[in-house]
Amino acid sequence: MAPKPVSDRECPARWSRRRLLALAGAGLGVGALASSMAGAMARGRSDVDGMALPFDPTAGLRAFNHGTVIRENGVPIRVFEVQARSLTVPLRRATRFKAWTLDGSIPGPNLRARAGERIRVIFHNGDSTSHSLHFHGIHPAAMDGIQPVLFNKTTIYDFEAGAAGLYPYHCHVAPVTRHVGKGLFGLLIVDPLQPRPAADELVLVMGGYDLQNTGHNDLYAFNGIPHHFMEHPIAIRQNQLVRLYLLNMVELEAPLTFHIHANSFEILRQGASGEFRERSDVVTLGVAERQILEFRYPFPGRYMFHPHQDQIAEKGCMGLFEVLAV
Amino acid sequence: MAPKPVSDRECPARWSRRRLLALAGAGLGVGALASSMAGAMARGRSDVDGMALPFDPTAGLRAFNHGTVIRENGVPIRVFEVQARSLTVPLRRATRFKAWTLDGSIPGPNLRARAGERIRVIFHNGDSTSHSLHFHGIHPAAMDGIQPVLFNKTTIYDFEAGAAGLYPYHCHVAPVTRHVGKGLFGLLIVDPLQPRPAADELVLVMGGYDLQNTGHNDLYAFNGIPHHFMEHPIAIRQNQLVRLYLLNMVELEAPLTFHIHANSFEILRQGASGEFRERSDVVTLGVAERQILEFRYPFPGRYMFHPHQDQIAEKGCMGLFEVLAV
Amino acid sequence: MAPKPVSDRECPARWSRRRLLALAGAGLGVGALASSMAGAMARGRSDVDGMALPFDPTAGLRAFNHGTVIRENGVPIRVFEVQARSLTVPLRRATRFKAWTLDGSIPGPNLRARAGERIRVIFHNGDSTSHSLHFHGIHPAAMDGIQPVLFNKTTIYDFEAGAAGLYPYHCHVAPVTRHVGKGLFGLLIVDPLQPRPAADELVLVMGGYDLQNTGHNDLYAFNGIPHHFMEHPIAIRQNQLVRLYLLNMVELEAPLTFHIHANSFEILRQGASGEFRERSDVVTLGVAERQILEFRYPFPGRYMFHPHQDQIAEKGCMGLFEVLAV
Ligand SMILES: [Cu+2]
Ligand SMILES: [Cu+2]
Ligand SMILES: [Cu+2]
Repeated sequence: MAPKPVSDRECPARWSRRRLLALAGAGLGVGALASSMAGAMARGRSDVDGMALPFDPTAGLRAFNHGTVIRENGVPIRVFEVQARSLTVPLRRATRFKAWTLDGSIPGPNLRARAGERIRVIFHNGDSTSHSLHFHGIHPAAMDGIQPVLFNKTTIYDFEAGAAGLYPYHCHVAPVTRHVGKGLFGLLIVDPLQPRPAADELVLVMGGYDLQNTGHNDLYAFNGIPHHFMEHPIAIRQNQLVRLYLLNMVELEAPLTFHIHANSFEILRQGASGEFRERSDVVTLGVAERQILEFRYPFPGRYMFHPHQDQIAEKGCMGLFEVLAV
Repeated sequence: MAPKPVSDRECPARWSRRRLLALAGAGLGVGALASSMAGAMARGRSDVDGMALPFDPTAGLRAFNHGTVIRENGVPIRVFEVQARSLTVPLRRATRFKAWTLDGSIPGPNLRARAGERIRVIFHNGDSTSHSLHFHGIHPAAMDGIQPVLFNKTTIYDFEAGAAGLYPYHCHVAPVTRHVGKGLFGLLIVDPLQPRPAADELVLVMGGYDLQNTGHNDLYAFNGIPHHFMEHPIAIRQNQLVRLYLLNMVELEAPLTFHIHANSFEILRQGASGEFRERSDVVTLGVAERQILEFRYPFPGRYMFHPHQDQIAEKGCMGLFEVLAV
Repeated sequence: MAPKPVSDRECPARWSRRRLLALAGAGLGVGALASSMAGAMARGRSDVDGMALPFDPTAGLRAFNHGTVIRENGVPIRVFEVQARSLTVPLRRATRFKAWTLDGSIPGPNLRARAGERIRVIFHNGDSTSHSLHFHGIHPAAMDGIQPVLFNKTTIYDFEAGAAGLYPYHCHVAPVTRHVGKGLFGLLIVDPLQPRPAADELVLVMGGYDLQNTGHNDLYAFNGIPHHFMEHPIAIRQNQLVRLYLLNMVELEAPLTFHIHANSFEILRQGASGEFRERSDVVTLGVAERQILEFRYPFPGRYMFHPHQDQIAEKGCMGLFEVLAV
């Protein structure tokens, strides 16, 4: 019942080798890996203590991976490729963290689909350790991503996107705390059929780093790099509707809060028959909980956001909105 | 104002000794204790490292204690008997835990009543230490269960069941963390007058074990036995509506999350004028918080459930649903 | 863009020195400080181990500071004065805690305004360390209270009260955990234009004390003094509607739960278009989260309230309602 791991040479029946290669393309090869990393580094305009970041958290805020839609027997399928690989990430002065990443960044790509679509995720493990991708959402057991995928193997996860909402994905190889803590997580956004009102859409994912593998986090970050958005505030426009897709993936920790300064947000809770909205400026999220938050900043200026557990904020989980006058 | 502890010979005014004995029957005597334990062990088909379990977590999933309805001056009263007693429980290889139990199992019995009913709980302390039963819900101070009940004494808690919902009960003798941590907790389900739609109804209660009394939990479990439902998956039917009564009684710990794999659930929140429903696949519960969760598995197979704090899941708080094809 | 700290001699343009003095009055001088403390001590009818409390948690329960409404160019402005100062607080036998307080109490004053009003908070730092007041709510960056206010300086925070609800305020000088943990926090209640139904209104704020600055709390309290409401139960009337404004300001800790015995409450969640109500007897609040809880006790007697994390309750965060028969 488990998904059969496939190498480049072993393709599942309904998925021809030619099509797999056409779609997955160079992404599975070593050369492609290098060129993709080069691209990521070119995007990165930041560095920590002189070492360039291998990915740019600011670019990741608004980068959505819509995949590619193919047709199989007339049925449209949205295909994503995701690759696990190791990466050294400078987290702060003299701290070079050997991370495990998806597509070379933490979090992995912001995947995006529409309610009810068929989804196909081609997962290639380019790391020397076994990993997997477990998606939250509704799918058969064989697509649940709890089977380890060996080094240099590829697995395909086929499922339906289901109802609109936010669906975390992460490695589910034991110990999960370690595989998640080293960076193997991300967010699948499933949009409603009736699109939400236009907004400046952002993804923030909270993560924690247990540097010495002691069972306690030493550093925390929004979108991978501690304090990144303190040094690189997130530019938003005054009065512009902001729609924040927020996910807590901090393992080894109690539920976190998320607070924005000088404003309140609407929390879009997913009710059984549509959404209902709650208003606050602090929201609590357990591990793997997520919320859609909507807000507008009426005044220009710089505003902090952080968990209201301030000892966690002060260890890297803190950022700024820079609200630009219109 | 505190409830007067009564021995078998000291019965409260409105409760004749004959009726007490008739109802409470052998349950309060030593012989009955032995026969009741024998029954529990006969039910138990599991063992840990060769030691048979004194109770069967799988049977406990769907075992509801409806008590006995009597009439007093024409008023119907639903009467439950609950007995505290010590029990050695094998939690894992070479770990024999001296637990405190209610009716010989952890959690105690899944009590069940209907909204507005008069409830009577005859609590007998068959343990050598003082204990009590504190029920969540609306009742007079004298029925609040914060007075210790001495060894071999019986107390009667009389109250009205109140609105439909889930009501934890637990020992409230200080230190409460220890009395709860050793197993003295359970769930009272109060059904609405208009019954809920038919469903496969399950009770899962999360608990933690502080084996060395260090103030930190070493093991965790659903329904008393760490990892039990990994070795004995919970059989449910494909597409069948499952109604899960979920309670978090893990002391000494931050709020927990609960996650089911490959599915989402509706959370039935108790609103002031009925229920409203929220949809997710992760829910956060502080100590003594509880939720009714409803879901159907559309695909056969095995699916994990666990708190998404994976270090807790990996210490015993993990299980499987086995979804059987129809 | 930061608020310009003003001494008594440096007043903001639209705020004449004469008016500032008239309003702020003696509150900013040393003589006034002494007389105000004397007043607080006169109110205090409690002591801990022979040392009189410098403030009375019981009085603080129902003490609302509505400020003074002035008019500026015809616009009504509600003006509050708040003063930071050090204070030695007896927390338990032989524990004299050097607290930082607002207006000489922990929490600071229960400020109260109406939706949409213009608010002016004259904050005077009478302590030897820098502090600030950061209000939750919607306001310009310059009014966000993240700039330290030096010793003996006064800053004015001008903003609009915004929508009805509960808004915590606290010092935002780093490390925030320490400035909050030493007592610099409180609650601004913004009432709806259409007043809520009459009720016995109470404010309870949960706080934690890290006595040795170890990063862990040793004691906890409702309204500043551990176990105060165990020794001085809160008198309420049978069947009287109680409206509890509850705030969690316990830093260095996982989200807390709050539980009342022998009753349930309605949680008034702030929806986007009004309030919606949820019913429970346990609610989880992350740091800086707050809820309005409504309940009536139908039976006279004494009833405990506490976080259901019992190890925290047992370290001071516990109290009693004394329900008086009518
Ligand atoms: Cu992994
Ligand atoms: Cu007990
Ligand atoms: Cu301060």
